[in-house]
Amino acid sequence: MASDPERLNPDEFQLIERYFARGCEDPRVVLGIGDDAAVVDAIGAMAIATDTLVSGVHFPDGLEGDSVGHRALAVNLSDLAAMGAEPRWCTLALTLPGVDHRWLEAFARGFFALAETHGVDLVGGDTTRGPLTVTVHLIGDVDREHMLTRGGGHAGDDVYVTGSLGDGAAGLALVAQAQAGTSAAHEALRTRFLKPTPRVEAGLALRTLASSAIDVSDGLLADVGHLCRASGCAAAIDLERLPISAEARALFPPATVEAWALSGGDDYELCFTAPPAHREAIRQSLSGSGTAARRIGRLTAGDGVQCRRRGKPVSPPSGAGYSHFGDGLGDPKAPRRGAAQRAGRDSE
Amino acid sequence: MASDPERLNPDEFQLIERYFARGCEDPRVVLGIGDDAAVVDAIGAMAIATDTLVSGVHFPDGLEGDSVGHRALAVNLSDLAAMGAEPRWCTLALTLPGVDHRWLEAFARGFFALAETHGVDLVGGDTTRGPLTVTVHLIGDVDREHMLTRGGGHAGDDVYVTGSLGDGAAGLALVAQAQAGTSAAHEALRTRFLKPTPRVEAGLALRTLASSAIDVSDGLLADVGHLCRASGCAAAIDLERLPISAEARALFPPATVEAWALSGGDDYELCFTAPPAHREAIRQSLSGSGTAARRIGRLTAGDGVQCRRRGKPVSPPSGAGYSHFGDGLGDPKAPRRGAAQRAGRDSE
Repeated sequence: MASDPERLNPDEFQLIERYFARGCEDPRVVLGIGDDAAVVDAIGAMAIATDTLVSGVHFPDGLEGDSVGHRALAVNLSDLAAMGAEPRWCTLALTLPGVDHRWLEAFARGFFALAETHGVDLVGGDTTRGPLTVTVHLIGDVDREHMLTRGGGHAGDDVYVTGSLGDGAAGLALVAQAQAGTSAAHEALRTRFLKPTPRVEAGLALRTLASSAIDVSDGLLADVGHLCRASGCAAAIDLERLPISAEARALFPPATVEAWALSGGDDYELCFTAPPAHREAIRQSLSGSGTAARRIGRLTAGDGVQCRRRGKPVSPPSGAGYSHFGDGLGDPKAPRRGAAQRAGRDSE
Repeated sequence: MASDPERLNPDEFQLIERYFARGCEDPRVVLGIGDDAAVVDAIGAMAIATDTLVSGVHFPDGLEGDSVGHRALAVNLSDLAAMGAEPRWCTLALTLPGVDHRWLEAFARGFFALAETHGVDLVGGDTTRGPLTVTVHLIGDVDREHMLTRGGGHAGDDVYVTGSLGDGAAGLALVAQAQAGTSAAHEALRTRFLKPTPRVEAGLALRTLASSAIDVSDGLLADVGHLCRASGCAAAIDLERLPISAEARALFPPATVEAWALSGGDDYELCFTAPPAHREAIRQSLSGSGTAARRIGRLTAGDGVQCRRRGKPVSPPSGAGYSHFGDGLGDPKAPRRGAAQRAGRDSE
């Protein structure tokens, strides 16, 4: 939120009208914004995701509105991607410290640009006054017979991840440090944090091929850990196979980038598992969705996540994931990405 | 939130596990808490409501957890009641400044007690760190042919309200001023604020009888105004017909109580309209739902809401509704109920 909000006494109804009440394209929206509740026509199983972003916790205070709007929807789209669901409708609960029209216009621009990309209609919401907090609730169609859960993995399955890892944390480090670098690599990494790309099409392409899936929001090791617990398996991750972008390699030391790839969070890639027999079908199917994936390890019997380097077990870098309630925070207002911030300082 | 949260380093997964992951009764819940998204089996039209409560804005800082938990769900149940929808599933986005187990236990107790009353399953959510904010997202079944909207009223329809008005604001005044009165009237009014009763059964009973409905959350005049705008009508409200509780009459001056009834907000009663031919059917149907309603006026041609006393137009008391972004707030941390607070001070 900018520091000098206008004091116009617009009430919440005017805010909704001005920024958020757009017509809905979807004929399945029976009643959109403007009544006590929205009404949609459901047909079969629905996947439901909710994620909250808090200023100063999930993104730096003062972040531009279009990035906050994009991210608030993207983190939920990423959750539905990990279910193999097709996003349809969302609601937006927006808590604002004041009314800053420039910021709200940018927020709506970022939010609706991503919503339109994925054919998502905003059908309802609530605007309230308070510390800047954004909760999006996203509903999508899902095929009960082919939905992806965290719990379907089996020992022997390959472990994959889409795209590249560590870019979200690298981008946050650049944004938080206000590094003014203008190279293409700087721009690309900042964009990876400011406007992450949820892997919705990849999730849909994987529905009949993957045995389990999760989105990488807390950091690879933490999220593979969740997947392993749900699947009753262990995992072995080959560190030399982690997909690291050329941009991250160009701007940060290898150890920093590896730590971010494992624990930085904010990548919003899909981590999924599949039997080895599906390798070729996965390659082909993902190629059609425009997203590549790399095999980075395997599920095994047991529990826990083991890192390997050239086949030998190694200790993972410290900071094995992201906890909103973790210790060791100097400034509670600072973006709380332990690994990202520590590594970011190392690289200065 | 109590002022001395424990510092235990529990992460968000443990919090969800400990307080919120309960089994779901509903066989239509395919996948509950614990994956990237919940999955439910939808059949036909669904009503979707989202409301946010912010500490210090929608309730006083320091309010007990069980009241915050109850209210967060109640305000959404009230929205679905106003649609004539049958609540089914909810998600909970809970932003906490820290981990206070006593408070969280109370929150979960208040939340689940009301959820069980209405057969609502908590299927997902998100816990984050930040200023205390609670967003509930509630989904229910609704009959497309018989859903209640704000827009169905016609000139000539009666205007009704369930229960009594002004008790929410009266209760807030007692809670905010920490008035220690222990009479039955004090207790009853405090409870009306701390644990409002959403009129879900009344909404269901009215589906085939009412022409339009809205819940009274912002204050009667403001909410009737919304209904009139959506219905393309005006309304005339007879002030001597406002349902005021014996408890409010006993503890506060008549002018104060009338102002609260019109503009106090937080009552979570249903305001609805119906053709005069439905009077007897409405009386009988509501009697079966355990909630009474009183006729308080009529829809007319034109626009706006007119107050009448003994048939003559009068000016409404100042403060014709509740705006989260209204002016005139001395302390942004104080509960922001203009009319309630002013009237509360008058009555000291």
